[in-house]
Amino acid sequence: MPIWVHDVNGLDLLNREVPVLTVVGTGLVGASVGLGLRAAGFLGHVIGVGRRDSTVRRALKLNCIDEATTDLAAAASRSRLLLLATPLSRFAQLFEQIGAHAGEDLVITDAGSTKQQVCADARRILDRPGRFVGAHPMAGSEQQGPEAARADLFRGGTCVVTPEADTDTQAIALVESLWRSLGMVLLRMTPQEHDRQTAVISHLPHVVAALLVGVANEQGGWPIASTGFRDTTRLASSNPPMRADIMLANREALVEALDVFAAHLQRMKGRLADADGAALLDWLTELKKARDRWLDEH
Amino acid sequence: MPIWVHDVNGLDLLNREVPVLTVVGTGLVGASVGLGLRAAGFLGHVIGVGRRDSTVRRALKLNCIDEATTDLAAAASRSRLLLLATPLSRFAQLFEQIGAHAGEDLVITDAGSTKQQVCADARRILDRPGRFVGAHPMAGSEQQGPEAARADLFRGGTCVVTPEADTDTQAIALVESLWRSLGMVLLRMTPQEHDRQTAVISHLPHVVAALLVGVANEQGGWPIASTGFRDTTRLASSNPPMRADIMLANREALVEALDVFAAHLQRMKGRLADADGAALLDWLTELKKARDRWLDEH
Repeated sequence: MPIWVHDVNGLDLLNREVPVLTVVGTGLVGASVGLGLRAAGFLGHVIGVGRRDSTVRRALKLNCIDEATTDLAAAASRSRLLLLATPLSRFAQLFEQIGAHAGEDLVITDAGSTKQQVCADARRILDRPGRFVGAHPMAGSEQQGPEAARADLFRGGTCVVTPEADTDTQAIALVESLWRSLGMVLLRMTPQEHDRQTAVISHLPHVVAALLVGVANEQGGWPIASTGFRDTTRLASSNPPMRADIMLANREALVEALDVFAAHLQRMKGRLADADGAALLDWLTELKKARDRWLDEH
Repeated sequence: MPIWVHDVNGLDLLNREVPVLTVVGTGLVGASVGLGLRAAGFLGHVIGVGRRDSTVRRALKLNCIDEATTDLAAAASRSRLLLLATPLSRFAQLFEQIGAHAGEDLVITDAGSTKQQVCADARRILDRPGRFVGAHPMAGSEQQGPEAARADLFRGGTCVVTPEADTDTQAIALVESLWRSLGMVLLRMTPQEHDRQTAVISHLPHVVAALLVGVANEQGGWPIASTGFRDTTRLASSNPPMRADIMLANREALVEALDVFAAHLQRMKGRLADADGAALLDWLTELKKARDRWLDEH
């Protein structure tokens, strides 16, 4: 069962414990963390690490970070807290690069959209896996790059954290403080449960949005597409490499979600083929209620 | 092939030819037509006809119409132009009620979301089917009732009109003027082509949005649902009886669209199961391009 963690603000702990924070990856998410922490009153120094000098310099110019570098090892050795905000496919390599240079008290977290593989890699590669706390801030945009960064990107969103039985409690406190300071509500669950739920609620909608565009591409109908089509397919305009990464990393749970979806689709088709108006109306009414209830609660 | 009809404004013709216009059904669409015409400078008298006195009185109170009645026969006999804006399932009955009372020059149009069945019913029931011009204004909202009406609901949207070989040319001109006056771009196509394209571009997204909610309902994940889920499922909050009507009326084309969608889904699942990252990335990239191109053009 997921555990909700309530606490108004984690900023005091961050300001006391974290003089230097490193953000690896200064795209939309990393740059928004920098902007958001500064807006919240974070007093520490924020180092942005990029693979390409140009991206990290753009983030510096936009005041998302205090210092730009491509030298991850040097940044890790100076930091108390380090956040991975790159595409998922680079995490294993980054864990290896950090491993050799981490200070003894370095706490590591991430903003990756899947958790089982990330947590398994951290356990396998890092010298002190108990100081890694997996996280998934449920916020984003189909835009990308530091130019799209916003201080309030995370505000009001939910952040799933996936500490395990042997995770260091102080590491958990620091990581949870980071996301709380950005205005997020925390939700603890296991990496497995996280991946199952995100397959259903996030990765499946991404696939479905792309499928709708694919069908329209094949069958025509673009001239009459309207706001309903636009909103239902919004996720199909998201960053392709990032999504391919996520879908691959979570492919088992996603294949299961696709199977469940396909089964629901066949049942729905049966109601249509039977011209069963009453069953169709019941089905649409029940799902409208479920969605409206969720909207009311959020 | 659909034919685009360009013309800046149809208001002059409407003001010259239509002293009295009747709108049957004063929910979101009917009431927005009333508001929109008034805002555009329509000088004629707008009668709103409702089955229930209460709805049509609300529309009158909100200044969406000039006169409220439940007597369709009387309204039809006084009108030059009549618009059906009720649920599709009532159209056949309304055609019968109008049939006996239509003046010789009465032109009829509709705002129904499917066209083959509507046009066939008009041809079968009306005394002068050549004076019926099917239309589908591609605009709407998941809200309902005259309270949700907006003068600009139709502005910038596309309206499909489906005149047939024997449709009266002056009737076409009047109906096209009506939708043009509301700020719509007109697109002529056959009722068959309309239904095939709307199945793909509108009814399928409605089904898919509901299916996503159904899967979440069964599998869990609500606590972490975010803006992506919200937008992709927006259509699942639309009016259930109206959607059940539309899906039934267009069920052949919709079943075909569901089959095409299911085939695309299986191919996508194959790429995932094979962990074929390159194919996945190509697929996502191509569909992002297709959607972004459409957005740029609209």
